[in-house]
Amino acid sequence: MHRLQVVLASRPTGEPKEADFRLVESAVPEPGEGQLLVGNLWLSLDPYMRMRMNAGRSYAKPVELGEVMVGGAVGEVLSSRHAAFAKGDHVVGPLGWQTHAISDGSGLRRVEAKTIPLRAYLGAAGMPGVTAHFGLLEIGAPKEGETVVVSAAAGAVGSVVGQIAKLRGCRAIGIAGGPAKCSLVVGELGFDACVDYRAADFEQQLAAATPQGIDVYFENVGGRVLDRVLLRMNDFGRIPLCGQISQYSATEPYGLTNVGALLVHRIKLQGFIVSDHAEQWPAALTELEHWIGAGRIKMLETIAEGLGKAPRAFIGMLRGENIGKQLVKLA
Amino acid sequence: MHRLQVVLASRPTGEPKEADFRLVESAVPEPGEGQLLVGNLWLSLDPYMRMRMNAGRSYAKPVELGEVMVGGAVGEVLSSRHAAFAKGDHVVGPLGWQTHAISDGSGLRRVEAKTIPLRAYLGAAGMPGVTAHFGLLEIGAPKEGETVVVSAAAGAVGSVVGQIAKLRGCRAIGIAGGPAKCSLVVGELGFDACVDYRAADFEQQLAAATPQGIDVYFENVGGRVLDRVLLRMNDFGRIPLCGQISQYSATEPYGLTNVGALLVHRIKLQGFIVSDHAEQWPAALTELEHWIGAGRIKMLETIAEGLGKAPRAFIGMLRGENIGKQLVKLA
Repeated sequence: MHRLQVVLASRPTGEPKEADFRLVESAVPEPGEGQLLVGNLWLSLDPYMRMRMNAGRSYAKPVELGEVMVGGAVGEVLSSRHAAFAKGDHVVGPLGWQTHAISDGSGLRRVEAKTIPLRAYLGAAGMPGVTAHFGLLEIGAPKEGETVVVSAAAGAVGSVVGQIAKLRGCRAIGIAGGPAKCSLVVGELGFDACVDYRAADFEQQLAAATPQGIDVYFENVGGRVLDRVLLRMNDFGRIPLCGQISQYSATEPYGLTNVGALLVHRIKLQGFIVSDHAEQWPAALTELEHWIGAGRIKMLETIAEGLGKAPRAFIGMLRGENIGKQLVKLA
Repeated sequence: MHRLQVVLASRPTGEPKEADFRLVESAVPEPGEGQLLVGNLWLSLDPYMRMRMNAGRSYAKPVELGEVMVGGAVGEVLSSRHAAFAKGDHVVGPLGWQTHAISDGSGLRRVEAKTIPLRAYLGAAGMPGVTAHFGLLEIGAPKEGETVVVSAAAGAVGSVVGQIAKLRGCRAIGIAGGPAKCSLVVGELGFDACVDYRAADFEQQLAAATPQGIDVYFENVGGRVLDRVLLRMNDFGRIPLCGQISQYSATEPYGLTNVGALLVHRIKLQGFIVSDHAEQWPAALTELEHWIGAGRIKMLETIAEGLGKAPRAFIGMLRGENIGKQLVKLA
């Protein structure tokens, strides 16, 4: 039995290419004292990984050339010399783009597939779900009846944001790329409306969908969409800034022109990264698992088969080709 | 005796011109029942007035063509048919660009020139002071030892921001236009350093003045300065967004490119307008009066003589020609 890993082969400028990744094979390692060996079952692909491919200053240190790509995965413990984990346990954590991972337990938690599938722990019941929960409820703090807009609304985070907004009695409006995604966001996820940012009349559509203005804008994409949304914000609006995927591979950064709206409307815009808020995770996960199990939060997923497909799936995700959570099935 | 008033003659595009204002003369009016007549002594000129000259959507309704320009002033009650004010009282409030004002008392408060001069109620002991106090302490929330940077540091608000930061045990760094202002900001006001944004090596100077990065950036100017400062912000930094004077007369808005720093460093940027926070004024004013009286907050002032000079002084202020609080002496 061999181990497959995807390592960073070169740092992309602009959009990553498949050649920026390399698939390598090696023997499956043995866990040392205090370690465990995990056979990964599902790998999560997330936009933040694009930033980790850059050398520059960011909120986490970059992946080095030749190192395994960072990423969350869910797997099964194959052997353990760690007191807290036993063979057969299912775990989720930062296990990387690989079929087998050696872990010392840091960042790992045990999960069970009782009421929800294991792969949900990479999506709505995992980091993306907690990101949506924390960003919307703690920073956005929407009140019943308010209008919540979320970009990348068909994505892993955005899809949960809008559904939580609905559960809290808000009007939920998605922004997504193309009519197929928009139709799922409304038809499957129950948003009140979804606006296609690629449409020529995007601004008019957004205005029509937000007749009372926008109270909370959960931002995942940045750039032009943010600039246009700023003009619809209500006084004392809140903008949880979760990501700006449109900018991660941009060679020229977008110049935001409507900054004045932040002053005129006394808006709070706050960048956040969910890993800073470990204390918020347990309660959020409990609530999310409950909602998913009860069918009140639905999951959209795109699944690639096999680790070799991960680079292509990741590149596609950055282009918005996936719908919902992008996963790679490893076993 | 006649009344002089400055009315809005035309809406400027870009920088206002003197011809956008008109000086008009009329008889001094009599107060009606529930009104009082104030003889204005000092008029305050403030950047926000530029926005009120535009027709567009802003946080307050625009001044109409032919209407008296809005503005804070301090004056003496000449006659009163209002229960709360008596002849001889000194008052401060929204009395406008005019030598005599009829008021129904709204927004007016009685002040005394016991420990500080009357005109201070238009500056450090008035709206600009409370703006500095609220924005820095409530939104910026600096901790002892942190680095606070403020733009328009020689201005009415910025000069108080840096002095409060020093009183709170912070490192205070100003940004101002030209060596003369910078020298006053350090020499007179006691900032730790001041960086000239017009200097060719502005970025290097800013980096040298903030070796530990920036924790709080109190923003008055917007545009390029904001963009450069974003690159020096520390994790979990706070940006009270008070104004963006560089943009008020801009025909092309500046395109802010370093928005990504808000995410990477998990920064909170919050627009605010001090008039939204009436409940904060009494305590802030008490503290500011105390500090000014005790010489712990110093005031820089530029004084124009006579209402006829107000338009020219206002235009100069928008260009940064004044130092400290821009006042017009009316009597």
